[in-house]
Amino acid sequence: MDAGLFTANNVWMMLATALVFFMHTGFSFLEIGLTRQKNTINILFKNIFIITGGLLLYYAWGFNLMYPGFEEGSSGIIKFSMDSFGISAPENGMTPEYADGGYTWWTDFLFQGMFAATAATIVSGAVAERIKIGAFMIFTVIYVGLVYPIVGAWKWGGGFLDSWGFYDFAGSTLVHSVGGWAALVAIFLLGSRIGKFDEDGKAKAIPGHSIPMATAGVLILWLGWFGFNGGSVLSADPELTSLVLVTTSLAAAAGGFGAMILSTVLYKNLDLTMFLNGILGGLVGITAGADLMSPNEAVVIGFLAGILIVFAVALVDKMKLDDPVGAVAVHLVCGIWGTLAVGIFGAKAGGEQFMTQLYGVLIVGVFCVVCTFIILGTLKAVMGLRVSKEEEIEGLDIHEHGMDAYPDFIND
Amino acid sequence: MDAGLFTANNVWMMLATALVFFMHTGFSFLEIGLTRQKNTINILFKNIFIITGGLLLYYAWGFNLMYPGFEEGSSGIIKFSMDSFGISAPENGMTPEYADGGYTWWTDFLFQGMFAATAATIVSGAVAERIKIGAFMIFTVIYVGLVYPIVGAWKWGGGFLDSWGFYDFAGSTLVHSVGGWAALVAIFLLGSRIGKFDEDGKAKAIPGHSIPMATAGVLILWLGWFGFNGGSVLSADPELTSLVLVTTSLAAAAGGFGAMILSTVLYKNLDLTMFLNGILGGLVGITAGADLMSPNEAVVIGFLAGILIVFAVALVDKMKLDDPVGAVAVHLVCGIWGTLAVGIFGAKAGGEQFMTQLYGVLIVGVFCVVCTFIILGTLKAVMGLRVSKEEEIEGLDIHEHGMDAYPDFIND
Amino acid sequence: MDAGLFTANNVWMMLATALVFFMHTGFSFLEIGLTRQKNTINILFKNIFIITGGLLLYYAWGFNLMYPGFEEGSSGIIKFSMDSFGISAPENGMTPEYADGGYTWWTDFLFQGMFAATAATIVSGAVAERIKIGAFMIFTVIYVGLVYPIVGAWKWGGGFLDSWGFYDFAGSTLVHSVGGWAALVAIFLLGSRIGKFDEDGKAKAIPGHSIPMATAGVLILWLGWFGFNGGSVLSADPELTSLVLVTTSLAAAAGGFGAMILSTVLYKNLDLTMFLNGILGGLVGITAGADLMSPNEAVVIGFLAGILIVFAVALVDKMKLDDPVGAVAVHLVCGIWGTLAVGIFGAKAGGEQFMTQLYGVLIVGVFCVVCTFIILGTLKAVMGLRVSKEEEIEGLDIHEHGMDAYPDFIND
Repeated sequence: MDAGLFTANNVWMMLATALVFFMHTGFSFLEIGLTRQKNTINILFKNIFIITGGLLLYYAWGFNLMYPGFEEGSSGIIKFSMDSFGISAPENGMTPEYADGGYTWWTDFLFQGMFAATAATIVSGAVAERIKIGAFMIFTVIYVGLVYPIVGAWKWGGGFLDSWGFYDFAGSTLVHSVGGWAALVAIFLLGSRIGKFDEDGKAKAIPGHSIPMATAGVLILWLGWFGFNGGSVLSADPELTSLVLVTTSLAAAAGGFGAMILSTVLYKNLDLTMFLNGILGGLVGITAGADLMSPNEAVVIGFLAGILIVFAVALVDKMKLDDPVGAVAVHLVCGIWGTLAVGIFGAKAGGEQFMTQLYGVLIVGVFCVVCTFIILGTLKAVMGLRVSKEEEIEGLDIHEHGMDAYPDFIND
Repeated sequence: MDAGLFTANNVWMMLATALVFFMHTGFSFLEIGLTRQKNTINILFKNIFIITGGLLLYYAWGFNLMYPGFEEGSSGIIKFSMDSFGISAPENGMTPEYADGGYTWWTDFLFQGMFAATAATIVSGAVAERIKIGAFMIFTVIYVGLVYPIVGAWKWGGGFLDSWGFYDFAGSTLVHSVGGWAALVAIFLLGSRIGKFDEDGKAKAIPGHSIPMATAGVLILWLGWFGFNGGSVLSADPELTSLVLVTTSLAAAAGGFGAMILSTVLYKNLDLTMFLNGILGGLVGITAGADLMSPNEAVVIGFLAGILIVFAVALVDKMKLDDPVGAVAVHLVCGIWGTLAVGIFGAKAGGEQFMTQLYGVLIVGVFCVVCTFIILGTLKAVMGLRVSKEEEIEGLDIHEHGMDAYPDFIND
Repeated sequence: MDAGLFTANNVWMMLATALVFFMHTGFSFLEIGLTRQKNTINILFKNIFIITGGLLLYYAWGFNLMYPGFEEGSSGIIKFSMDSFGISAPENGMTPEYADGGYTWWTDFLFQGMFAATAATIVSGAVAERIKIGAFMIFTVIYVGLVYPIVGAWKWGGGFLDSWGFYDFAGSTLVHSVGGWAALVAIFLLGSRIGKFDEDGKAKAIPGHSIPMATAGVLILWLGWFGFNGGSVLSADPELTSLVLVTTSLAAAAGGFGAMILSTVLYKNLDLTMFLNGILGGLVGITAGADLMSPNEAVVIGFLAGILIVFAVALVDKMKLDDPVGAVAVHLVCGIWGTLAVGIFGAKAGGEQFMTQLYGVLIVGVFCVVCTFIILGTLKAVMGLRVSKEEEIEGLDIHEHGMDAYPDFIND
C-alpha cells in the first residue's frame, strides 16, 4: 500500500483515539454537573479510575480477549492463556498489511482501549451519589475487564453475532447498551437516593450543581463522537468517514430538536437538560448505523431518538428508578433504538435484518443483565453496595475522600 | 488524484470541521462567563439552539442556497426550487474530482454548516440578558437560514463580490461582520440593560459571573480558529495551511498584547478581559487575509486589531449601546479592519484592492443592517423583543426556563 | 517525496501543534483549580501572558536562537545577529526537502513555539499566590526568550549534548526540568505563602477553589500530550507515532495508579489530587523515552513516576518549600526520572547511556539553577519578588487587577 495513504489513515485513527479519550472529560462534566456538589469529588475519582484502570486492564488482557482469542465463526467461548497477558508488537503488525492499511496495531489497541472504558463510565453516572466506591471499583474492573470484551468479541472480534449478520457500526449495542443494561440493573439493586420519591411515590427533581458544566460535557461528547463514529470506519476512507460525520452531527442536532420540541409541548418549559439529553440520544441512536444512513435517514433516526428520550426519562421515574443523569434513557433506550433502526432504515433495511438486530439486542441484554446481577448481587451480599444514610446525606466527598470539591470557593 | 493526498486533505478538513464545531463551546463559555449568573441557562439554551438549529437549517436549504443555486458571475438573485431542500450525494461528488480533491462533498457540507451557525452565535452574546428567547429563535432561523447564505453566495458561492475581486479568505466580513452588523442593530433596537448607564448616561460595568469560564472560552476559540482559518484553505496544502496557522496564532498573540498594553497605559490596570478581547480581535482581524500575509504582517494586523478593540469598546459605551461581551468591537470593528487590511498588507495590497474591499464591506454592511432592521423591527412590532422589567431583574433563567444554573451550589 | 505522505505528515504535525496549544488551557485550569479563589485572575493573566508573549518572543528570536544559530557540534555559544530577528520563509523551506518531508518550516516554527511557552507555565503554578506580576513577566520574557532556547539548542539544535548522545525525545529534561528547576529556585527565593507552615514548621494544606477545574485540567493535559509526544516524532510515521501514543497513555494511567495506590496505603484516603498528579508524573516520566519503550516498560516507568510523586510532594513539604500545584514533584522530579529511565529501560538502556543522561540532567540543572538565581535574584534586589502581606491576604486579583474572578456569582 501507498505510504501516503497508510499514513493518512493512521493519522485519522490516532486523532479519533484522542477524541474518544476526550469524551471522558465530557462524561465527567456531564455527571458532576447534573449531581449535587457534595458528591463531586467522588464522581471525578470514579471517572479517573475508569479511564486509567480501564486502559491498564485493556492492556493487561482485554484487547487480547476481545480480538485474537477466537477462531472465526466459533461459538463464543473464550480461550484464556498466559500469552494473552499484556501486549507486544506482533510479527508484522506495524506494516500496512495489518488491518488493510487502515492503521497500525498500536493504534488499534489504543482506539479500542479508549472505547472499553466508556461502558463503565455510563454506569458511573446512573449510580452516582449513593454507591460505595469500593464496590464500584470492583464492578468496573470485572465489567470492563471481562463483560465488555466478551460481548465485543461476539461481534467485533468475529464471533457468532458477526456470523449471524448482526450489525452495530460503532456500538449502539456493544458499548452504549452494554453500559445501559448494567446501569439499569445497578439502579434497581441500589434503590433511589433519599428524597428522590416523596411518600406518595412521586418523583421529585434533585437538581445538579452546575448546568454550565453539564452543557460543556454534552458539547465535548458531541465533539468526541467525531472520533467515536468517525474512527469506527477503521480507516480514513474519505467518502465513508465524511458521511459518518454528517449523519452523526445531523442525528445529534435532530435529537436535540426532537426532545426540545416535545418537552416544550408536554411541560410548557424550555428545558435545557432535555435539549442536551436529546442530543446525546441522537448520537447514541445513530451510532449503530452511522455508515449506512443517508442524511435524511439520520435526521429521522435522531429526531425519534430525541422523542424517545422524553418518554424514557418519564418512564424511569414512573418505575421508581433513580437515574440522576438519565443514563438509561440515553444509552440503553436509544442504544436499542439505534440498533433496531439498522433494520428499518438505510442500506441494510429489511425484515430479516430487523430480526437479527432484535436477537442481538436481546442476547446482549440478557447476558449483561445476568452478569451485572451476579457481580453486583455478590458485592451486595459481601460488602454492601450502598453508603450509609449519614454518608449519603452529608456527601460522599467528605466521607470517602476527606475533601470538598470547592473548598476555597467564597461568596462576597 | 493520488489516494493518499485526497485522504490526507479530507482528514485535515474533517478535523478542521471538528475544531470549528468546538468553537461553539468556546462561545458559550465566553458569553456566560461575561454575563450574570441569573441569565446563564438562557444563554446556553440559545447557543444549543443555534448549533442544532443552524445545522438543520443549513442541511434543509442553506447549503444549496449558498453554493450551487447560482450561475457564475450572475447578479446575485437566488433561484429557489424544491430540489434545493435537503442534501443528498451528488452524482460523482465523493470522488477526488470534487473540489480538486481537497475534500468530499459531505465534508464540504459539514464544514460550511459549522460556519453558518457562527454568525448567530455572535449576535447571541450582544443581546444577552434582555432579549425574549422566542424572538431570538425566530431571528436566528431567518438570519442563519437566509441572510448568511445569501451574503456567502455573493463571494464564496461565486457571486458578484467574487467577480469584482473582493477577497475574504475565511470570513472577516462574511462571517464575523455579518454577525457583528446584526449585533449592532440588535443592541440599538433592544436598548441597554437596566443599570448599565447611570442617570448621567455614564456607562457602568456589569461584571460577569465567571472570568475563568470566559478565559477558557477564548482559549477554546483560539484553538477552534486553527480549523476556522486552517480549514478555509479547503485542502491540506502543506505550505498554505501551515502559513495560515502561523499568521493566525501570531495575530492572536499580537492582538492580545496590543489590547493589554494600551489598556494598561490608559486605565492603569492589568485588565484580563481586555487582554482576552484583544486576542479575539487579532483572530478576527487576520481572518480575511490569513493566507496572504507574512508573519511580520500578521503581527502588525493583529497588534492594530488589539489597539482598535480598546477604542471600540469605549466607543460603544460612549454611544450608549450595551454590548455585554464586546461582540461589536471584536466581530464588527475587527472584521472590517481585517477585510480592509487585505488592501493594505500582504500579497494583494494596493489601492484598487483596498477600494474593492471597502465596497464589499459597505455592501454587506448595508444589506445586513437592512435585513436585521426588517426582521427585528417586525418582531418588535408583533411580539416585542425585550423581556419585562421584572423578568430582567429576576433573571431570564427562572422566567423562561424555570431553572437555576447552579441550583445545588452551596457555600460553607 | 510523495505529496500524499508529505501532506499527511504535515497534517499530523499541525494537529499536534493545536493539541500542545490546548495544553495551556489545561495548565490554566489545573493552576487555578488548586489555588485560592482570590488569586484566580492573577494566575489566568500570567498564563495568557505566557502563551501570547511566549509565541511572540519565539517568533522574534527564540526560534532562530534555538535552531539554526549554531554550527553542528559547536561549543554551545550562541551567535546573535540582526538576521535572527523575526521569521520569514527560507529559500526552499516549504518543500518536502525540509525536515525529510516531516513538515513545513512554518509548522516547525509553530510547533516549537507552543513548546517554548510551556517551561514558563510550569513556573507559574509554583510561584502562584505571592509573586509580583511585574517580576514574573520580566522573568518569563528572559526565561522563555533566552534560557529555554539556549538549553534546547544544546540538544535539539544539534549542540554538545546531542553530540554526546544525550537522549530526550520530547523534553523530560529540555522542557519539564527546565521549568522545574526554575520553579524550585523560585519557591526557595520567594518563601512560602502565609499560613502554609504552622509555628512548629508543619505543613498545612491550603486547599484550592475548584477541584473539578483541576481535574479537567489534567484530562486536557493528557489529551495535549498526544500532540506533545506524538508530534515529537516530527512526522506521522505510523509505527513510531502510534507506539508513542500507546507508551504515553499507558504511562499516564500507570502513574495515576501508582500514586493512588501508594497514597491510599500511606494516608488511608482516596486522594483525587494525588491521583491526578500521578497521571501528570507518568506523562512527564515517559516523555524522554516515549519512542524507545515497549508498552510494558512504559507501564513500569509510569508506575514508578507515580510512586515518586507521592514521596516528592512530601519531601517538598519537609524542606519547607511551598509549591501550591506540585510543579517540582511533577515536572522536576519526574522529568529527571524520565531522563534517567532512558538509560535503564528500552532500546538505549545501558551504563554508558545512563551516565550520559545523568550528565545531561546535571548540566542542564546547574545552568537553569544559576540562570534563575541570577534573574530572580536581580529582580528581588531591584524591585522585589513578593507582594505585600496585605495584598497576599486580600488577594492578588483585587490588588493587581482590580477585579474578582466570580464577581456576580450568587448563592441562594
